[in-house]
Amino acid sequence: MSDNKLSTDAYKGVRDFYPEDMAVLRYIMNTWSTTAESFGFERYDASVLEPAELYKSKGAANEEIVDEQTYTFIDRGEREVTLRPEMTPTVARMVSGRRRELTFPLRWYSIPNLFRYERPQRGRLREHWQFNCDIFGAPGVAADVEIISLANQLLIDFGATPDMFEILVNNRAEMTALFADIGITNQDTVTKITRLTDRKKKISADEYRAELLKIVGDNTKVEQVVGIVEVEAGTNPVILGLRELGITNVRLDRTIARGFDYYTGTIFEILDTDKENNRAMLGGGRYDNLTSMFGGDPISGIGFGMGDVTMRDFLESHQLLPTNITKTAPTLSIIPAEPENDLASQKVAQLFRSHGIRTVVDIGQKKLGRKIADAADSGTKYALVIGETEIESGTYVLKNLDLNTTESGSIENLLTFLIAKT
Amino acid sequence: MSDNKLSTDAYKGVRDFYPEDMAVLRYIMNTWSTTAESFGFERYDASVLEPAELYKSKGAANEEIVDEQTYTFIDRGEREVTLRPEMTPTVARMVSGRRRELTFPLRWYSIPNLFRYERPQRGRLREHWQFNCDIFGAPGVAADVEIISLANQLLIDFGATPDMFEILVNNRAEMTALFADIGITNQDTVTKITRLTDRKKKISADEYRAELLKIVGDNTKVEQVVGIVEVEAGTNPVILGLRELGITNVRLDRTIARGFDYYTGTIFEILDTDKENNRAMLGGGRYDNLTSMFGGDPISGIGFGMGDVTMRDFLESHQLLPTNITKTAPTLSIIPAEPENDLASQKVAQLFRSHGIRTVVDIGQKKLGRKIADAADSGTKYALVIGETEIESGTYVLKNLDLNTTESGSIENLLTFLIAKT
Repeated sequence: MSDNKLSTDAYKGVRDFYPEDMAVLRYIMNTWSTTAESFGFERYDASVLEPAELYKSKGAANEEIVDEQTYTFIDRGEREVTLRPEMTPTVARMVSGRRRELTFPLRWYSIPNLFRYERPQRGRLREHWQFNCDIFGAPGVAADVEIISLANQLLIDFGATPDMFEILVNNRAEMTALFADIGITNQDTVTKITRLTDRKKKISADEYRAELLKIVGDNTKVEQVVGIVEVEAGTNPVILGLRELGITNVRLDRTIARGFDYYTGTIFEILDTDKENNRAMLGGGRYDNLTSMFGGDPISGIGFGMGDVTMRDFLESHQLLPTNITKTAPTLSIIPAEPENDLASQKVAQLFRSHGIRTVVDIGQKKLGRKIADAADSGTKYALVIGETEIESGTYVLKNLDLNTTESGSIENLLTFLIAKT
Repeated sequence: MSDNKLSTDAYKGVRDFYPEDMAVLRYIMNTWSTTAESFGFERYDASVLEPAELYKSKGAANEEIVDEQTYTFIDRGEREVTLRPEMTPTVARMVSGRRRELTFPLRWYSIPNLFRYERPQRGRLREHWQFNCDIFGAPGVAADVEIISLANQLLIDFGATPDMFEILVNNRAEMTALFADIGITNQDTVTKITRLTDRKKKISADEYRAELLKIVGDNTKVEQVVGIVEVEAGTNPVILGLRELGITNVRLDRTIARGFDYYTGTIFEILDTDKENNRAMLGGGRYDNLTSMFGGDPISGIGFGMGDVTMRDFLESHQLLPTNITKTAPTLSIIPAEPENDLASQKVAQLFRSHGIRTVVDIGQKKLGRKIADAADSGTKYALVIGETEIESGTYVLKNLDLNTTESGSIENLLTFLIAKT
């Protein structure tokens, strides 16, 4: 062993996906994909590398994220490049780039990996995979209702019941009007209140009021703002539309603000009703001006993002992860009795595979008993030993590792048997 | 339009995947995945971010790539981090990290995106997706035969015939022995000859000899090396094993060297027989000492990588891309006659989706005729208009956009009709 051996750890804050974790990730991604396509959404993707300026445009993003949390560096050609921290600027860039050729309304989804330099903690990693769904070119309330009903359907498709989660809805334009009613019209002040209110559930009521006082300047205004954001009931057209579709676990929450400055109308979150897992597991909103940073008339958009880490936490806390997910084992394990039989075994495997049977050959340097035990442990259903005795006699034994039964015959007989079974 | 509007171009040398290109990428990835799983390979993944030291270890990689072509930067915590340029060091790290819990031989595959800072050109981008297959813990020739037969099967599964490609095999250990026979035993000299020979097909014969002379020092040795690398025929146990499996488009090529220093035994490439597309579209080899950089006894490995760009070039040049790949359109398009019917349409769509029918609602602000034309253009098979007349009468018309036929009835009637059709 060398003294200066390398660590086998992954880079800090990111994950290795060993096959059992990869199987869970694929299950989550496949479910996301199936639900999106059932609504007629088409999949797109882009590189993790984006020009840094994409995130620096006024109104494009959250300044805290850009200044403190992006992975931004200078490439060998002196370009400033960022590992995408979110997908919305990318999709806005792509839609703007082909606005003349695309047919609207456009429904697009993607499953990108996103990067943020943060202190790793539960549900927060430096890289995660995020399901993104967006509708472009449909400014009416029907699009808001559809995108939220898609998010709802997604959780239903994972096996969730409506008691397990709650949909919170708010509206930036409505908030602006409510603030205007109490004399707060300066956009910077509204933005500061919005960002503070977004953190309201994470800080104490006193701290919220103290911070608010710094922004609005007097206690009367503080109480008026608190009066607006702490309203307990209420509806808006989106909530009425969702109820029309039979979605009732939805309510207005004036504290919902979302982190991004580009939202203009409806904003929403889905919360796990399990208080142990109290982070928003999904969030999104309407952004009607984002594409204007690329020039031309703005194309309205509404969308949401949902991460794989919070998704898995939700599925695990509600015991919704199917137990058979990791069973990706092949059907048949062909076991050479001795290394001399390895090639003959590969040839037989080729025959079984050509009939659609997933087949592995144990070419390891282990004893026969160990190979059979490993095949059983791996979840493979059948094992077929190939040694000199079998080759000379032409008679082979197919073992059912689940039932501990056997079937004897020529390779052709056993192939016919297995084709019938699978 | 703002004067300082942002460009809609992607970062230089990477790609945006609009839905039609994404559909092709998904087809390629799904085929890779299906073939690998038919051989009993399990999927894994890791982050694109790796500690930079992973690629700097002696013998871990090709120095040219590390020094001149990686994306390496310092993160906000002063760690040196690299966007992975290849997957083999990552999989070696993961296997080493769990060597005590894993059952060998291990068959793993992944489809990572890889990054290299190179001048973009045909078949060479700064980011591409690469299929990686590796077998660990099987040092015998049977593993070499299996991994190459998997690569062969992959092309067959894409619809290729053996005349479309050629498998070239060589062996680093055999080359070392041949060089020793002519008195070249210094490992640095062998490495220099190997790297030069790897470029032999890209440079002139004179240039090759001139460069070789600089390495070996005299013309007699130059001719001896040329005598070794230009041998026209020959076999080795791997080639014999592949022929045993019926794979005959395989030959020994002593100029095959592969770029990575970590290869120790068998090395191989697959070339397109179409001379217009003469880059290796797949390459790999055996690396028996790579895991030793993490300490402990080395675990033998053999594997290959195959990129999506060269794969697509191959499929296109041989006309193997299925023509129906881009048809991811939903089955049914529900078309509100007026925006007032949007919500009622969403409700009907929800009903159809709950019966497994992929359904989209055109909530765009277009005229009815335009909406029907867009539905037909999108490849949707059926259209259902919902307006006041239909809602009042309770009778709706389902239009088959392919055949231009119609079916009338209540929503329930039409649902039953469509369930029977799909």
